[in-house]
Amino acid sequence: MMAIERVAIVGLGLIGSSVARAVKERLPQVTVVGHDAKAEVRDIARELGFCDIIADAPAAAVADADLVIFAVPVGGMADAARAVAPGLRDGVIISDVGSSKAGVAAALGAALPGHIVIPAHPVAGTENSGPAAGFASLFEGRWCIVTPGAGAPEDAVAALAGFWQALGARVETMDAAHHDMVLAVTSHLPHLIAYTIVGTASELEEVTESEVIKYSAGGFRDFTRIAASDPVMWRDVFLANKEAVLATLQRFNEDLTVLQQAIRRGDAGKLEDWFTRTRAIRRSIIEQGQDDAAPDFGRKH
Amino acid sequence: MMAIERVAIVGLGLIGSSVARAVKERLPQVTVVGHDAKAEVRDIARELGFCDIIADAPAAAVADADLVIFAVPVGGMADAARAVAPGLRDGVIISDVGSSKAGVAAALGAALPGHIVIPAHPVAGTENSGPAAGFASLFEGRWCIVTPGAGAPEDAVAALAGFWQALGARVETMDAAHHDMVLAVTSHLPHLIAYTIVGTASELEEVTESEVIKYSAGGFRDFTRIAASDPVMWRDVFLANKEAVLATLQRFNEDLTVLQQAIRRGDAGKLEDWFTRTRAIRRSIIEQGQDDAAPDFGRKH
Repeated sequence: MMAIERVAIVGLGLIGSSVARAVKERLPQVTVVGHDAKAEVRDIARELGFCDIIADAPAAAVADADLVIFAVPVGGMADAARAVAPGLRDGVIISDVGSSKAGVAAALGAALPGHIVIPAHPVAGTENSGPAAGFASLFEGRWCIVTPGAGAPEDAVAALAGFWQALGARVETMDAAHHDMVLAVTSHLPHLIAYTIVGTASELEEVTESEVIKYSAGGFRDFTRIAASDPVMWRDVFLANKEAVLATLQRFNEDLTVLQQAIRRGDAGKLEDWFTRTRAIRRSIIEQGQDDAAPDFGRKH
Repeated sequence: MMAIERVAIVGLGLIGSSVARAVKERLPQVTVVGHDAKAEVRDIARELGFCDIIADAPAAAVADADLVIFAVPVGGMADAARAVAPGLRDGVIISDVGSSKAGVAAALGAALPGHIVIPAHPVAGTENSGPAAGFASLFEGRWCIVTPGAGAPEDAVAALAGFWQALGARVETMDAAHHDMVLAVTSHLPHLIAYTIVGTASELEEVTESEVIKYSAGGFRDFTRIAASDPVMWRDVFLANKEAVLATLQRFNEDLTVLQQAIRRGDAGKLEDWFTRTRAIRRSIIEQGQDDAAPDFGRKH
């Protein structure tokens, strides 16, 4: 297996800085070099000390790296890749952490011709952003989806998978198009819906924003968490995964129309059937370790 | 102020049993009599011991009570009221904990003519149901909305408000129609949306249910919590608060269509603006003590 002794992380926000922290904690023999396009982020990163080296210049950051991970909004991948290109050594593994994969694979491939590009997506995060928001255990027990293209060398794919497993993640491989459909359902549509409803609630004439905040424990507050996620990151995700998001949104709209009609018609049986079916999914999510069993997400009462 | 020395709770699920537990803990001088239409729930309640007395007959449960609280699905309020009617003493305060108020006020008023009916709604709960799911601290720091009708005696309203404050709740009064509009936004629409998306995700052809569960940490799992709430309770809420729910749903649909168009057209600026605005609401909710500040709802990582 290819050895990964030096990792460069480009983009030191929530995910990039969590990768750095996890490497320092779980792979202490690996050197972590960090870079961020913003000087103030590099300053914070230096102060927090979660990388061995912070490089001011992108090409210097990736020099001698065995693995380069781009942890920038998916719309910024191509620019970030072009910026580091002059510093890359032959045989380096190029990867990322973006939430959409087909577009990122194309962008990185075009920006870095002749290099080994193996996109990846750790399905983990919080609603917070920036270098101070990261933590080493973010990937523990979470899935990391690796989407190697047809020509990706097997030993490089194995090395990348081993890297993520070392950070505590479980690894699955699939093709980029399927990833984008799966994540449209499990992540992108939920974010879009949450952003929508939080916007809707804050602009009603009949109900003040202060009332919405005050009585949010009735359910609304659950949506505000993911609607507090990084706006630029999510803008880019929706633009990059447009087709899959619009396709799943259409299915959601159909279902919402069916329930809307059931309410209007007073169809008690249809509502109760629907609400009964959806209970089982949460049980499975908890059984598979993807959420806490504690009521109310374990909030303090 | 009217003295409340004996409380009867009709319906011993999550909310009813939490009220009982909170009274035992915070108002030990008050006698709590519990009743549930289901014999197996009464058996569990006896075993758990959160009431002083469990009455098998509804009319016996309310005998000599100063306050009767109906904690049944809103569609079951009229039947529950008629069942206890023969046992009610003059001057008793009749209240409830239902999530819609105009319909409940009408139902209780019609079922119990000549009695003092003061509907109330503690905005609190978890996704769990049944007598074992309740706990004494459920109402601490949460709002309880009281919706007295025009003829409600002031001392009775004050006594009910004092009762909820004693259980740790903050009390607000408003008219029933406004309550129903506020809760349509902060609770009913969020539940409808969550039920919808969880149903949508479980029935796609392109993505298996097992994939949805596996990768749910990308955001989807947040929706599964409230979509695991009691199906009968929620069926009744949507039927009882139909007009307000459909009105807010229309606003939501408008906004979703605007965002859908922005994605289709690649309108990056509109998406980023929207996603930036929604961040502030979560901050306010946390500042006002209506949610935890810990990232990811404080889930363990």
